Amino acid sequence: LSGEFNLIYQHIAPLAGSRGDVVLGIGDDGAVIQPQLGTQVVVALDTLVAGRHFFVGQDAADIAYKALAVNLSDLAAMGATPKWALLSLALPVSCATKQWLEQFMRGWSELAQQYDVVLIGGDTTYSDTLTVSVTLMGEVVTGQAITRSGARVGDDIWLSGCIGDAGFALSQLLAAREVEANLARRLHRPTARVALGLSLTGLATAAIDVSDGLLADLGHILKASNVGAVLNLENILFSEAVSQWVDISGWENPLTSGDDYELLFSANHQNSAAIRALAQQQGVPLRRIGVVLQVEQGVKVIKNGSEQPIPTRRGFDHFASTDIIKTS
Amino acid sequence: LSGEFNLIYQHIAPLAGSRGDVVLGIGDDGAVIQPQLGTQVVVALDTLVAGRHFFVGQDAADIAYKALAVNLSDLAAMGATPKWALLSLALPVSCATKQWLEQFMRGWSELAQQYDVVLIGGDTTYSDTLTVSVTLMGEVVTGQAITRSGARVGDDIWLSGCIGDAGFALSQLLAAREVEANLARRLHRPTARVALGLSLTGLATAAIDVSDGLLADLGHILKASNVGAVLNLENILFSEAVSQWVDISGWENPLTSGDDYELLFSANHQNSAAIRALAQQQGVPLRRIGVVLQVEQGVKVIKNGSEQPIPTRRGFDHFASTDIIKTS
Repeated sequence: LSGEFNLIYQHIAPLAGSRGDVVLGIGDDGAVIQPQLGTQVVVALDTLVAGRHFFVGQDAADIAYKALAVNLSDLAAMGATPKWALLSLALPVSCATKQWLEQFMRGWSELAQQYDVVLIGGDTTYSDTLTVSVTLMGEVVTGQAITRSGARVGDDIWLSGCIGDAGFALSQLLAAREVEANLARRLHRPTARVALGLSLTGLATAAIDVSDGLLADLGHILKASNVGAVLNLENILFSEAVSQWVDISGWENPLTSGDDYELLFSANHQNSAAIRALAQQQGVPLRRIGVVLQVEQGVKVIKNGSEQPIPTRRGFDHFASTDIIKTS
Repeated sequence: LSGEFNLIYQHIAPLAGSRGDVVLGIGDDGAVIQPQLGTQVVVALDTLVAGRHFFVGQDAADIAYKALAVNLSDLAAMGATPKWALLSLALPVSCATKQWLEQFMRGWSELAQQYDVVLIGGDTTYSDTLTVSVTLMGEVVTGQAITRSGARVGDDIWLSGCIGDAGFALSQLLAAREVEANLARRLHRPTARVALGLSLTGLATAAIDVSDGLLADLGHILKASNVGAVLNLENILFSEAVSQWVDISGWENPLTSGDDYELLFSANHQNSAAIRALAQQQGVPLRRIGVVLQVEQGVKVIKNGSEQPIPTRRGFDHFASTDIIKTS
């Protein structure tokens, strides 16, 4: 925490929250936390940059919400309980206002309170480019973290919810077309599958959140686990809007557009009933979309019984210039 | 960790380091760490922005070194042992090169290896503005963290090393004047007082690192501890260059310029001998520069026995436009 005390104390600290495991929160050189006995600490960091991950001029509450949500999603994919957050805000002059910061903290608090995430520190600086970086820490029972490397040949591959909504919304907004509120929300205020992730410890052999695109994120699991996979397109859930998008532009779009924040995971087939029960309990669609294969078999996508060519570009890469959100 | 796998794996992961308490490092949705029993986790986050905290075009190794050093300094001020780091890199196209990243990681590794800090995760994105944000986590024996709020009336006030070198170097560079290598190093590659901070647990009642400027940082301790203070200018150590700066431009300069990363701390007078012994052992100058007073007495600076007027601007504020490093 540097010298921007007035700014931080007036607008951020009152909304930071508190909890017994926060020994020392915002306002010192560092925060002090007390993880529970028998746990390990899980940490994720995601950075959102104006004009890349959100539109310049985007509602500050949306930006804050998304910056926290994408990190919640990372912890969900690890099966961890989110607990403590740090926030790095690099603000252009136009955002260093009472109004902007209050709006930002409104979006932050809405989501942070939902999961009892306490803001324990951070840094606020000026920058020409609005950059929001969140470090989110949480806990997992020792040894229970779900990694990307545990998928085994014969495991089922599962996907929560439907994918492609955020990608479709983005494509529409980039083309200056109207987007329905519920689709825009999937882009600007994604839902992290926190409860689902927690329930998957002991059930899933590997998990990842779909942030880069389904094929890209599946690829991360396959690489880490040294396995291959086959996906059945028919089993992947699409919203009506995305179904139309698929009809017009091909199935590759929702499978390679990022920002879905659904959970993609593998599990032994004997856990199928337990996973279906989870879907019921939590009211989250869980579809068995494929099976883990030997590594030599690579990735196959099956549509109506026939294997499809895999697109070269499997997901969102912040260093591929074609993927940058251009707003000016 | 988002989709920039090639970049990160090729240039960053090989230099991340490893240690038994890193259960899962770079390459999953989150990292998993195992803090030691009987400890609390201390976390600091500091963000450096090109053109604000370092010059545009600065050597990438310097940038990395400083980004880690300022966080090491925060943990030192807490009396914590640094352990695990996360790195958020928002890079302009010009920096997203093999050369730049290798140079960056060279500076990072030089310092990280010195303190056995393991890089456990992060995020890399494009941005128009080079922004480096480091989250540094460490450990402290439960209950032993040194805060800003423990200073008591009658405590001595101590300062490590000499202050003003970085501020002087910056003033010279901004005026396009030559700067001696050792002074430039104080600005670009500050030394965090890690060993000293660790030794101060149980000795210091309060501590802070001098990042914003001595008067500003003293003010943070005084506010948090609800006390006042008197400083004796004669007891503050200046380098020869800064002594000349004081003669020409006044004592206010080194006491309000930031980036010193020395430790300012309070301690009961009965610990004086132990603190002087520390200075000997560690080869770090430790000067008793003042005394803690009742809060009503505010802050006094004494020079040659007479009280000095306190400057309005007590330190570096990233939101005061006058403080921004302008390079274009």
